[in-house]
Amino acid sequence: MHRRRILKAGLTGLAASAVASPAIAQSSPNISWRSVSGFPKSLDVLFGSAETVAKYVGEATDGKFKIQTFAAGEIIPGLQVVDSVSNGTVEMGSTALFFSHGKDPVFSLATSMPFLLNARSMTAWLMEGGGDKMLGDFLAKFNLLRISSGNNLMNMGGWFRKEINTLADLKGLKFRIGGFAGEVFARVGGVPQVIAPGDIYPSLERGTIDGVEFVCPYDDEKLGFNKVAKYYYFPGWHDGGANIDVIINNASWAALPKHYQAALRTACSYAHQEMISRYDARNTAALRRLVGSGTELRSFSPEILAGLHKAAFEQYAETAQKNATFKTIMQSMVDFRRDFYQYYRISDYAFDSMVMSLMGSEPKSI
Amino acid sequence: MHRRRILKAGLTGLAASAVASPAIAQSSPNISWRSVSGFPKSLDVLFGSAETVAKYVGEATDGKFKIQTFAAGEIIPGLQVVDSVSNGTVEMGSTALFFSHGKDPVFSLATSMPFLLNARSMTAWLMEGGGDKMLGDFLAKFNLLRISSGNNLMNMGGWFRKEINTLADLKGLKFRIGGFAGEVFARVGGVPQVIAPGDIYPSLERGTIDGVEFVCPYDDEKLGFNKVAKYYYFPGWHDGGANIDVIINNASWAALPKHYQAALRTACSYAHQEMISRYDARNTAALRRLVGSGTELRSFSPEILAGLHKAAFEQYAETAQKNATFKTIMQSMVDFRRDFYQYYRISDYAFDSMVMSLMGSEPKSI
Repeated sequence: MHRRRILKAGLTGLAASAVASPAIAQSSPNISWRSVSGFPKSLDVLFGSAETVAKYVGEATDGKFKIQTFAAGEIIPGLQVVDSVSNGTVEMGSTALFFSHGKDPVFSLATSMPFLLNARSMTAWLMEGGGDKMLGDFLAKFNLLRISSGNNLMNMGGWFRKEINTLADLKGLKFRIGGFAGEVFARVGGVPQVIAPGDIYPSLERGTIDGVEFVCPYDDEKLGFNKVAKYYYFPGWHDGGANIDVIINNASWAALPKHYQAALRTACSYAHQEMISRYDARNTAALRRLVGSGTELRSFSPEILAGLHKAAFEQYAETAQKNATFKTIMQSMVDFRRDFYQYYRISDYAFDSMVMSLMGSEPKSI
Repeated sequence: MHRRRILKAGLTGLAASAVASPAIAQSSPNISWRSVSGFPKSLDVLFGSAETVAKYVGEATDGKFKIQTFAAGEIIPGLQVVDSVSNGTVEMGSTALFFSHGKDPVFSLATSMPFLLNARSMTAWLMEGGGDKMLGDFLAKFNLLRISSGNNLMNMGGWFRKEINTLADLKGLKFRIGGFAGEVFARVGGVPQVIAPGDIYPSLERGTIDGVEFVCPYDDEKLGFNKVAKYYYFPGWHDGGANIDVIINNASWAALPKHYQAALRTACSYAHQEMISRYDARNTAALRRLVGSGTELRSFSPEILAGLHKAAFEQYAETAQKNATFKTIMQSMVDFRRDFYQYYRISDYAFDSMVMSLMGSEPKSI
């Protein structure tokens, strides 16, 4: 009762002061943005990041900062998200920056690299290892600002129509894989293919390509690769987890009131946490359905992984020689990863190993 | 130029409408809350969660929703945070709910349990596995609402004055460990001790206790345990990662405008991501300093881990028999964990295994 009385008095007092100083409202202008995604709506977790960001930005600003979301191709093709935000056609995008690898390999560093960071170490490197700052300086040249808004976790090694046992089996293999990972794949004699998501299934069905890497069981199942390729390989050597970003045109960002900036930044954190949790909660059921329908799980042989790992570090060195920014940022990531695993090995990784080895002896019901 | 003109026109229009409808400002009242932490300022990452939440809530509400943070003991003792928020003495707290294990073991489920979830699966279970809902229903009986705002990752197995090789070595061992994990420890013949952080060091130095579990290298180093105990054990069987919560008095929450609620919720996501990243970025350096000053790292023997694991599941069953809510929520966590590891084993865990086995062959410089 006492509480309610104080609260009521407080609100009355506030209403009075609001009438006296209408200037307060000027600081919360109505702003409408368009956010274009690099992903189709069918990939609901990847596309969902932008929706979650828009929802929480709207809620936190009492509906005054509205973000309208568009899927890939609705108003901007999925692969032109970076350009359209960079040139100010739209204020905001939601994408994986490694789609712009062709512009500069530094874009790939913002998303994921072969044999490099996992979702946890990538996030830590960005927030606490200098990554946000270094990538921010690079992206400013494109009028862009990025904020992490998700991670799709380790990407499966891909779907193959035939078993792959040795490095020799990769020679001449036409495999849908893009960006830096594609360059590594070419280095061991494979033939990387860049194919838009909608064209992968027919290419695989016709045998135009021999295999494809895409995302994870939950997303891959939707595209039906299991119907035209039997073997599903792990681990995903090429992608320990793709960091998904909200990208914002620098001038649009600068024009936002500071509190809208804070609302947008924290909404991205919520979306980040949500995407990881959604994948964690959904991948196993999808994997079970795939295996139940005939998919054969296979792990890459040590020979294949060692060969690809060697090729990746050769490609890193070659790229670094030509690109000083790449060299600096890549070195920072490699150093961070070495430190990260030194403790992770005896902490979370050791905990996981222990639980997995003991859980078989547990009763199913508590 | 064109952009700037549109923006200016927009702002002018808004200012005019604001003068005409001052009611807008009423929806953003000035609100001041006090947030009490269960942690001292010296544990800067754990205490820092509350500061980060307060910072972003302040920024996102243009300074109108102010949260003043207090460390453990400043206005409320660290172990009375739950009570003081529950009874409305303060609006908000920042703590690990398993400190309230004595009230009801369900509180422990909100933080961490022996051999159960890691930071990733805990977050996924909370957000996408029904955890937030189930714990929310339970906490409502205490007038509390919780939002995850951090995780301190796997807790080390603890500091011991002597080597521990067999289950028999635990018999009669006086070890600082509380809550549910303490009950498990007692089940194998150990003697759990509940000691406030400030009293642990002198107890260990005098030999009043034989060992202590606390948090992780970064936090443990601050308390100086390495000076009075030589052996540092892993993995932390008792705690795969303690979920840290912001807790809020239900009536205080209900009195918040919806957009302040959204600002608070998303600020907690930012703090969650930040705490994990801070620990990931700092633990290795702390571990190196500890090992450099004489600390000996040891892994628990398989016999000890199997014995504690068996005791934990016996304790789960015994607790579940007496507490239906505990049984329901615990079963949900165990089921989620089984599913989680089924895919994690071949995905992120397999990626980590691959990287750790190959990274020794990499050049130090790119």
